[in-house]
Amino acid sequence: MSELANIRIVLVRPLYGGNLGAVCRAMMNMGLSDLALVQPRENFDWFEAGKMALHAKSILEGRREFDSAAAAVADCGLVAATSAREGFYRDHSQGARELAPRILTAASERPAAIIFGPEDKGLDNDDLSLATHIMRIPSTPEYSSLNLSQAVMICCYELYLASGDFEPSEERYPPASSDLRERMFAMWRQALLDVDFMKSDKSDHMMMGLRRIFSRATLTTADIQILMGMARQTQWAANQMEQH
Amino acid sequence: MSELANIRIVLVRPLYGGNLGAVCRAMMNMGLSDLALVQPRENFDWFEAGKMALHAKSILEGRREFDSAAAAVADCGLVAATSAREGFYRDHSQGARELAPRILTAASERPAAIIFGPEDKGLDNDDLSLATHIMRIPSTPEYSSLNLSQAVMICCYELYLASGDFEPSEERYPPASSDLRERMFAMWRQALLDVDFMKSDKSDHMMMGLRRIFSRATLTTADIQILMGMARQTQWAANQMEQH
Repeated sequence: MSELANIRIVLVRPLYGGNLGAVCRAMMNMGLSDLALVQPRENFDWFEAGKMALHAKSILEGRREFDSAAAAVADCGLVAATSAREGFYRDHSQGARELAPRILTAASERPAAIIFGPEDKGLDNDDLSLATHIMRIPSTPEYSSLNLSQAVMICCYELYLASGDFEPSEERYPPASSDLRERMFAMWRQALLDVDFMKSDKSDHMMMGLRRIFSRATLTTADIQILMGMARQTQWAANQMEQH
Repeated sequence: MSELANIRIVLVRPLYGGNLGAVCRAMMNMGLSDLALVQPRENFDWFEAGKMALHAKSILEGRREFDSAAAAVADCGLVAATSAREGFYRDHSQGARELAPRILTAASERPAAIIFGPEDKGLDNDDLSLATHIMRIPSTPEYSSLNLSQAVMICCYELYLASGDFEPSEERYPPASSDLRERMFAMWRQALLDVDFMKSDKSDHMMMGLRRIFSRATLTTADIQILMGMARQTQWAANQMEQH
C-alpha cells in the first residue's frame, strides 16, 4: 500500500463547504484519500462542498466524522498539526517540505495524521497538544494566514512529491547527434544562399549567429526534422522563383 | 526590488469570482502582487472575489485588465504557461519546482509572466504559443486537473521558497551541552530513587531507558530546565512524604 493512502487529513470544526470541497479535490490531485472531520458545524453547506469537490466526491462521501480531534487520530502514530501562530509551539515547528519525508516514513508503519484548525481561529491548545510535530507553511509576514484548502494543498503537494510517485514526463525525442545537427546547418546554409539572405563570403559569419541561437537549448531529433523540413522547402521555393 | 514583485500572474478569461479572490490571497501569502486579467467574463462576480481575497483586496483592486494574453505579457521576457494537457507542449514542460529559479532569474532583468487558462478549458493554442516555457504542476494521473487558485498557489509557493525570502524560524534555545544533560540525569536518578520508582541496584538499567527516550531528539537548554524542575520538585515531594 502506498504511504499516501495511510495519511489522514483531519479538519477540526470546519466552517465552509467550499473549503471542504476544495480540500477533497486537492487530496485526490495529490494521491491522498483518508479524510476525517471533527464536529463540522450545524447547517454545514454539504451542497457547496460537493460542488467544489468536483470529481473528488468519492473522498467527500468516504469521510469519517468524529466528536474530538483525539478520537480522529486515536490510531495514528505521527500526528502533525499546522499552526501559523507565534509562540512556544512555533519554535519547534518544521517546514512542510522538511517534514514531508518524515510523515511518509511514519505512514509506512502506522496511519499518520495532519490536523488543520477552523478557518477563523486555527487549532486550540487541546488540539495542538495531540501533535507529535508542528508543521509550518512558509508565507510572508505581511499576510501569513492561508486559506484552509490552500494550506491542505501545499501539504498534500509536498507529500506527493516526497513520495516519489510522481514521474516527470520525459522529452519523448532524444537529443540530436552532432552529425545530424551539422547536416541540418548545411541545408540551412544552402537555403539562405538560395534566397539571397546572405552572400557566400559572409555565410560563415551568419551561420555562427544561427548556431548560437539554436544551441542555447538542446535540439532534439524532432526539432531537427522540423528545421530540415523548413530548409528543404525554402531551397525548393528559391529554385522555383529562379525558373520564372 | 524583489524579483517576486516583478512576476505577473495572468488569468485568461477567468470564470469564477471565488477563484480570483483565492488567487489574490495566495499571491499576497507568497509575496507576489502583479495581477493581470484577460477578458474576465461579463457579469463576473466581483463581490465573491472580494470576499475570498479577504486581506488581499489591494491586489484585487490593483489588477489590470487586457483584451488579449499577448497584450498582458507584451513587456515580459520569460512567459510561462501552465498546461495539464498531454501532447506536443507537454513533452517540453518543466515542473514548477524545477522552473521556479529560472523564472526568478528572468524576473531580475525584466517582468516575467505566468499564464493560467480558464477553469473549464485551460489555455488555447494561441495563448500557449506566447509561452517561452511550459510549466507542469505534478498531480496524479487519476485526477490531474487542479482548481485554478490551487494551481496559482503552488506556483507562488515554489517561487517564494526559491526566492530565499523565507527565513525559517530557528529553535530559540541552543542544544544542551553534555555536561548539562548529565546533571539533569543525575537529578532524575535521585528523584526516581526517592519516590521508590526503582531500587539502587536496578537504577543503571532504568536510567539507560530514560536516556534513550530523551536522546531521540535534541534536548535544548530550555528542555533541560523543565526536566530539572520536575526532578527537583519530585525529590522535594518525596522528602515531604518521608517526614509524615
